[in-house]
Amino acid sequence: MEWDSWGEALRGWFSNEWVWSNIGWSVIRIVLILVLGRLTVYIATKTIADSIMERKSSRLAIQTRRIRTVGKLFSNIVTYVVYFVAGLLILAEFNVNLGPLLAGAGVVGLAIGFGAQSLVKDVITGFFIVVEDQFAIGDVVQTGTFKGTVEMIGMRSTRLKSWTGEVHIIPNGMINEVTNFSLNNSMAVIDISVAYEENIDQAERVIREAVEEVEDVEMVRLPEVLGVHSLGPSEVVIRIIAECRPNTQAAITRKLYAHVKKALDSRGIEIPYPKVVTYHRNGEGGVQNGA
Amino acid sequence: MEWDSWGEALRGWFSNEWVWSNIGWSVIRIVLILVLGRLTVYIATKTIADSIMERKSSRLAIQTRRIRTVGKLFSNIVTYVVYFVAGLLILAEFNVNLGPLLAGAGVVGLAIGFGAQSLVKDVITGFFIVVEDQFAIGDVVQTGTFKGTVEMIGMRSTRLKSWTGEVHIIPNGMINEVTNFSLNNSMAVIDISVAYEENIDQAERVIREAVEEVEDVEMVRLPEVLGVHSLGPSEVVIRIIAECRPNTQAAITRKLYAHVKKALDSRGIEIPYPKVVTYHRNGEGGVQNGA
Amino acid sequence: MEWDSWGEALRGWFSNEWVWSNIGWSVIRIVLILVLGRLTVYIATKTIADSIMERKSSRLAIQTRRIRTVGKLFSNIVTYVVYFVAGLLILAEFNVNLGPLLAGAGVVGLAIGFGAQSLVKDVITGFFIVVEDQFAIGDVVQTGTFKGTVEMIGMRSTRLKSWTGEVHIIPNGMINEVTNFSLNNSMAVIDISVAYEENIDQAERVIREAVEEVEDVEMVRLPEVLGVHSLGPSEVVIRIIAECRPNTQAAITRKLYAHVKKALDSRGIEIPYPKVVTYHRNGEGGVQNGA
Amino acid sequence: MEWDSWGEALRGWFSNEWVWSNIGWSVIRIVLILVLGRLTVYIATKTIADSIMERKSSRLAIQTRRIRTVGKLFSNIVTYVVYFVAGLLILAEFNVNLGPLLAGAGVVGLAIGFGAQSLVKDVITGFFIVVEDQFAIGDVVQTGTFKGTVEMIGMRSTRLKSWTGEVHIIPNGMINEVTNFSLNNSMAVIDISVAYEENIDQAERVIREAVEEVEDVEMVRLPEVLGVHSLGPSEVVIRIIAECRPNTQAAITRKLYAHVKKALDSRGIEIPYPKVVTYHRNGEGGVQNGA
Amino acid sequence: MEWDSWGEALRGWFSNEWVWSNIGWSVIRIVLILVLGRLTVYIATKTIADSIMERKSSRLAIQTRRIRTVGKLFSNIVTYVVYFVAGLLILAEFNVNLGPLLAGAGVVGLAIGFGAQSLVKDVITGFFIVVEDQFAIGDVVQTGTFKGTVEMIGMRSTRLKSWTGEVHIIPNGMINEVTNFSLNNSMAVIDISVAYEENIDQAERVIREAVEEVEDVEMVRLPEVLGVHSLGPSEVVIRIIAECRPNTQAAITRKLYAHVKKALDSRGIEIPYPKVVTYHRNGEGGVQNGA
Amino acid sequence: MEWDSWGEALRGWFSNEWVWSNIGWSVIRIVLILVLGRLTVYIATKTIADSIMERKSSRLAIQTRRIRTVGKLFSNIVTYVVYFVAGLLILAEFNVNLGPLLAGAGVVGLAIGFGAQSLVKDVITGFFIVVEDQFAIGDVVQTGTFKGTVEMIGMRSTRLKSWTGEVHIIPNGMINEVTNFSLNNSMAVIDISVAYEENIDQAERVIREAVEEVEDVEMVRLPEVLGVHSLGPSEVVIRIIAECRPNTQAAITRKLYAHVKKALDSRGIEIPYPKVVTYHRNGEGGVQNGA
Amino acid sequence: MEWDSWGEALRGWFSNEWVWSNIGWSVIRIVLILVLGRLTVYIATKTIADSIMERKSSRLAIQTRRIRTVGKLFSNIVTYVVYFVAGLLILAEFNVNLGPLLAGAGVVGLAIGFGAQSLVKDVITGFFIVVEDQFAIGDVVQTGTFKGTVEMIGMRSTRLKSWTGEVHIIPNGMINEVTNFSLNNSMAVIDISVAYEENIDQAERVIREAVEEVEDVEMVRLPEVLGVHSLGPSEVVIRIIAECRPNTQAAITRKLYAHVKKALDSRGIEIPYPKVVTYHRNGEGGVQNGA
Repeated sequence: MEWDSWGEALRGWFSNEWVWSNIGWSVIRIVLILVLGRLTVYIATKTIADSIMERKSSRLAIQTRRIRTVGKLFSNIVTYVVYFVAGLLILAEFNVNLGPLLAGAGVVGLAIGFGAQSLVKDVITGFFIVVEDQFAIGDVVQTGTFKGTVEMIGMRSTRLKSWTGEVHIIPNGMINEVTNFSLNNSMAVIDISVAYEENIDQAERVIREAVEEVEDVEMVRLPEVLGVHSLGPSEVVIRIIAECRPNTQAAITRKLYAHVKKALDSRGIEIPYPKVVTYHRNGEGGVQNGA
Repeated sequence: MEWDSWGEALRGWFSNEWVWSNIGWSVIRIVLILVLGRLTVYIATKTIADSIMERKSSRLAIQTRRIRTVGKLFSNIVTYVVYFVAGLLILAEFNVNLGPLLAGAGVVGLAIGFGAQSLVKDVITGFFIVVEDQFAIGDVVQTGTFKGTVEMIGMRSTRLKSWTGEVHIIPNGMINEVTNFSLNNSMAVIDISVAYEENIDQAERVIREAVEEVEDVEMVRLPEVLGVHSLGPSEVVIRIIAECRPNTQAAITRKLYAHVKKALDSRGIEIPYPKVVTYHRNGEGGVQNGA
Repeated sequence: MEWDSWGEALRGWFSNEWVWSNIGWSVIRIVLILVLGRLTVYIATKTIADSIMERKSSRLAIQTRRIRTVGKLFSNIVTYVVYFVAGLLILAEFNVNLGPLLAGAGVVGLAIGFGAQSLVKDVITGFFIVVEDQFAIGDVVQTGTFKGTVEMIGMRSTRLKSWTGEVHIIPNGMINEVTNFSLNNSMAVIDISVAYEENIDQAERVIREAVEEVEDVEMVRLPEVLGVHSLGPSEVVIRIIAECRPNTQAAITRKLYAHVKKALDSRGIEIPYPKVVTYHRNGEGGVQNGA
Repeated sequence: MEWDSWGEALRGWFSNEWVWSNIGWSVIRIVLILVLGRLTVYIATKTIADSIMERKSSRLAIQTRRIRTVGKLFSNIVTYVVYFVAGLLILAEFNVNLGPLLAGAGVVGLAIGFGAQSLVKDVITGFFIVVEDQFAIGDVVQTGTFKGTVEMIGMRSTRLKSWTGEVHIIPNGMINEVTNFSLNNSMAVIDISVAYEENIDQAERVIREAVEEVEDVEMVRLPEVLGVHSLGPSEVVIRIIAECRPNTQAAITRKLYAHVKKALDSRGIEIPYPKVVTYHRNGEGGVQNGA
Repeated sequence: MEWDSWGEALRGWFSNEWVWSNIGWSVIRIVLILVLGRLTVYIATKTIADSIMERKSSRLAIQTRRIRTVGKLFSNIVTYVVYFVAGLLILAEFNVNLGPLLAGAGVVGLAIGFGAQSLVKDVITGFFIVVEDQFAIGDVVQTGTFKGTVEMIGMRSTRLKSWTGEVHIIPNGMINEVTNFSLNNSMAVIDISVAYEENIDQAERVIREAVEEVEDVEMVRLPEVLGVHSLGPSEVVIRIIAECRPNTQAAITRKLYAHVKKALDSRGIEIPYPKVVTYHRNGEGGVQNGA
Repeated sequence: MEWDSWGEALRGWFSNEWVWSNIGWSVIRIVLILVLGRLTVYIATKTIADSIMERKSSRLAIQTRRIRTVGKLFSNIVTYVVYFVAGLLILAEFNVNLGPLLAGAGVVGLAIGFGAQSLVKDVITGFFIVVEDQFAIGDVVQTGTFKGTVEMIGMRSTRLKSWTGEVHIIPNGMINEVTNFSLNNSMAVIDISVAYEENIDQAERVIREAVEEVEDVEMVRLPEVLGVHSLGPSEVVIRIIAECRPNTQAAITRKLYAHVKKALDSRGIEIPYPKVVTYHRNGEGGVQNGA
Repeated sequence: MEWDSWGEALRGWFSNEWVWSNIGWSVIRIVLILVLGRLTVYIATKTIADSIMERKSSRLAIQTRRIRTVGKLFSNIVTYVVYFVAGLLILAEFNVNLGPLLAGAGVVGLAIGFGAQSLVKDVITGFFIVVEDQFAIGDVVQTGTFKGTVEMIGMRSTRLKSWTGEVHIIPNGMINEVTNFSLNNSMAVIDISVAYEENIDQAERVIREAVEEVEDVEMVRLPEVLGVHSLGPSEVVIRIIAECRPNTQAAITRKLYAHVKKALDSRGIEIPYPKVVTYHRNGEGGVQNGA
């Protein structure tokens, strides 16, 4: 075969209608892809920026600077991904076999997908914390072993400040069960021991008079003496409860303890020390009698 | 090849029957896709709105405002997803290779699918909590270490209010084993220690007389003295049980303790303190005799 | 190209044999799909209804009303799924590219599949509980920390009623190891302490005589005194066992304790309190001698 | 286009050779599918039935009735699955697009696959328990916290009967580490405390003479006194070991305790009670000297 | 068939237009692939090198030498992967069936993807530690059981130096909940026991005077005496808190203890030893009175 | 259409060249498949048999009979799988659509793959135990809570025999961290308490002289007295270490205890009992002074 | 159809140009596959061998013999895999449908991939241990409950030798958090108790003088007396710290204890025994006064 037949072949090929109609379609599709890609990037970037503006004025106190960093990051990621996919689509128009590329991307995507699943879970759980109104900033909550005042509810993590000053930073996905201490009144519970030798009825009466003298703006109801809660080894335990405003029970408890202690002292009712009955024996012990 | 042959080629292509019949089909299909998409969105939005109306009147006390927020969210999601899929289908009509798009969506979908699985589990478990009637609002239940009165059973989480006022918010998917305290009568169980030196039969008789005097509207049966439950290091333990209405055992227990304590006191039966027998030795101890 | 050539093109296309044979096939297939879909729905609904009827008369006490609810739910699901798949198949006859639809359904299905796996595990395990006859209604079983009488074995969960009245609702999939207390006779085991100073042989003889006097219809064999089980810090521990009917060991144990206690008292054999040997020293202690 | 051209088109289509050869092939393939399907069902049912027969005579005591139930279940499942797949294959012959059907089945299959994985693990582990001869019926084994005599080794679970009568039913897949007590001789280990004041050599001699007098058919070797095992707070601990037949160590231990106790008594060697040295002070204590 | 017809066949094939046009396309595509591959490698290597430069000057103190090693490793990996994919694409141009190759790579990729998921999680979590500013170098943090000063925050792991000198190296993916001790002032909490016999009001007054004398530049507020925190078995516990600069509470605590101890000593207020009330009995004990 | 045109159509089809060439190819391929299948089965069976032969003479003592059973099992599995795949390939030659079959096999395979993953992990880990020479038969190792002498290292599990006779059977995949006690010399560590009143230097000297008199062929170095290890509540603890041959430390420890005890006795150095200082008060206690 | 038409058909087929050009391509591709396969095997084997050579001279002390075994194993695996894939590719040239083969390989690959993921994790983590320089041979590290000197860092596992001689073999993938004790100076921490009756200032002075006399080449700074660390039930606890070279704190601690003990003895400062205040009562106790 000679060069002129080459030329002829190419000429014939280029004058083939079907080929040109195909090329026409491809050009149309490539333009379509590019336009749609640009559009997607524009809309996504816009949406992210808007949602940042909106967020700033919402009740979630997230620092503006950080939000802006994350927003920029996300629009970068979106831009790269969209142009990468558009590039693949255009390659496909050149009939490049995309199988290997897709397989490679799939393995990487799988690893990332697995690694990112806890991130996704963080965001989903964080969304439901806000939508379900599980807790708000300022509430005292406990999750797992961490208890504190909610300082921040973020997209990925929540911050609690404990009363001793530590800040617990907890990924939202780890917040499974939450206990919220700020939704209802709290109950101060104190257990007072009195000696077995005391008259229970009198002891209860003294305690009742003592706790009813306690006054506190945080206490919403007069303390109640429930009665004999249990019989300990050396003491009769009497339980007192007092409903008070959320998270004020520690102070109320201290006041009640002090009052009851003084009242029992003044009536001479014994708060018992651990007691033991001893039997003294003089034998050597430990060896059988008759031996 | 010259420009007129280009024109001719295009003209030939546009006058090709097969091409036009194809375009005809495509137009029909695109219309079909758009109509079906709209229909799906309409039905889904309608269904969600209806089920919210219905829910409001059901026994699950969910706040209306929150329901509406979630409903709006879901119909937004449905709308976006349906139009996205419709867009893909129309792109496919233009013979755009959708492989890369689908692969990209697949990786994102995988990450979301993994991250969302606990959300799905929450909804499924919540559904069965209601269908199986595991507990209802007002019941006292315990799951894991959380015990309280059921305040709300939601789509994703359940709220328990403990007797001291905390609210436990538990994702339904974490509610594996549930203990429901409100379905049956409860049993008050109290263990009374008496000294080894006492006559057991007499002690049982005194205790039996004491508990039979206890009266309480919540107690459905006379308390029963079971007898010697165990021999402790310093005491003989006698167990008493009393069936009472659900969740009233704490008050009954307190009443029983107080009565039994007084009865034993009045008969001079000893509730023993811890006892110890001491052998006193004068030697230095700790060094071998013969050394 | 003019409108008459359009008309001609369409006419040519409609008079194309291949097209019509294709349409013929498609019509046949669509009819086939619709008929098979209806049939599947009918059979599935019928089967579910039948199995409900059958179940009602089986030994699993499931409330009829709830069964009916679940049955209706399942036949709804089947109906929706079958018609959805049939719709897809018919769309496929119109040559709509189903890739995007299937991919979308796949991601949703994946999330549901993951979320539903514990549900599937519940049903499978529940099936084997019944087939393997692991326990039946009325048995006393323990799984994990939950012990009680089996009240109900459901498709998804099992209910145990504890002796103090709580109802434990346990998903079948969480029932890994089960301990069944109702299959065999139980063994009452009691450990009696006697003082080191006592003659062991005599103590064993006294205990043996005491336990052999115990009579109980639930006791299937005379109690057996095994002998010295261990040497505690202050006591020689003698173990007694008594085989009795399933789940009656608590009562038997109480009877045995009472009898043995009385027998030892009457023979003057000491049940020892904790004992301690004290050496008294007068020095100040804690500072080296020669210092 | 008129009706006669329709007729002509169909006639032309039906007289097309390629069409008929295609139909010929399809018919052959459908017959092939049906024959193979039937064959598969027949062989599978036969194999299951045979393996049940075989199993009955094997050493695994599985109740015949239950086996038959499970066998019937499995051949039902096989039959349904084979005919379902055959149906799909025949549908495929009609050129129905099976994608949606397969995708739907895939999602269901995924959920079942995930849910069933613990079932598969049970069967595989059970197979290896038997093949590796980890334990046999009648052996005393412990796995996790469950200890007992093996009553049954099933396809899915194993039953242990504890000595107090409970039956533990454990899925084979949960049997990770097994401790088998029946393969080798057991070792009875007893620790005897003697007072610090005693002469150790003499004490060891007395103990050695005592244990050598113990006779028991289950004891395969004379007990051995190892010597001072540790120095406790109040006692010198001397360890004795005795090799005996599997699972007889409890009885041997009791015998040894009784013998040693009596021997030490008769020689006047002290088994010490907890000891404490007390320094008595008269000052008030707790306040600094010079204050 | 003879050799000349072979020749002729090949000649005919080589003079086929379609073939040549195909080859033309392939050549174009192969060139495209090679150019794009080179470009990708160049850009990736450049980006990695740049981000290393940038990192060096950032606040994360990562050793330069190690960064360079890792950078080189990553650009090697990128180069190998890109050329491997390019090779596959070129093979595809030769119409080699890539299915088996892709399947093989898929299995390997799956194993690597699963194995690498914790690596991916490490990187993602590390990224959020920095972006969310959870802690910075020099902060004192605790995660799990590890507490120390942050020495380094790396891409994959974080190093904490405990105050006793150990270095804890923790993969970022294991850092779920973090407690940061350096963000807020700390609270020194000390509990002082005084005897039940003391006057509580006076004891509080003495303690208050003592703690108010304590001076420390790290203490941001005067210590506060909260009052009776609990009633222990032998003591009344009084709690004192003092806010101080982050992580200085240990020294403040020591100062407060010393001051309070001296103040209580000088006023003769007793810090109680464990107390016990003993009842002495002379009977033998342990045997019933009337026996 | 009449029957003769049917005949003609078939005749024309059968005389079609393309058809026959296709059939020719198919026949060749089917033969190829069958030959390759047979070959694979032969090689696999051979390899398994050989590796069994080889194994028998290796240091891993696996019982021959069991190996043979497993070998037969594996060659059965291989045979079935190969012929199943070959069958599928031949079906494919008949243009049967294999999609449904493969999808069905995929779901089953998935369930098996998930269920079998712990089996695969067992084999892989077992392989590395041998290749890395982690332990050999006869070594004393501990993994998790199981300690004993290695009796067998199998393909799937390892057997440890504890010194009291139990056999622990542990799947290799559960053997994560192994502690091997047989690779290095062991260290016998004993802690001796002496009274605070003793002169520490003298006590150390006495102990040093005592332990240097101890002789044992298993002891590779003279025991060393490290000095004051801690100050306990009633005692000064002096630590002694002695390097000895692997797993002989128990006997050495006993010898050292006995020697040191006798030496301290003979020098009159006190091994202290728990000590307590008592302050006796006559007041009633528990009630405030001034009350 | 007769035999001669068969012959003619085949002849026609073999003289078909397209067929031959196809076969030509196939032959070219098969040769390509074989050459590339050989090349891959050669390069892989070479690379493995080289990296072994290199490793031998690196700081990781891996035994040569074992490396060689593993190297041989890996090149065997590579060879088998490459030839298996090449075989598949050649089969594909014969137009054998590879679907079933790939599906089968996929299920096996899935099981292996799942089972091997912990192996992959081991290798990845091991790689980062070395690259991040987490610890080197000779360092004292702790991971989980295992502490010891690093003896070997392998590809899959790490060996620690504890100071008592045991070797802990830990898969690298289980090494999550590592504590390295050899990177910084250690801190010896000792707590000394003095009696409440002592003058704290004087006690601190005595202790400070004592610890400042201690000399040790391993101690990098004079020990520091921090002051009152806590108030125990019977003692004032004074803390002393001393910075010393890595892993020498045990010896320093012993020296400090001995010095402080002697110094306190010589000044007559009491190290207190547990103290208890006893109130003696003569009443019977345990029964209410007025009863």
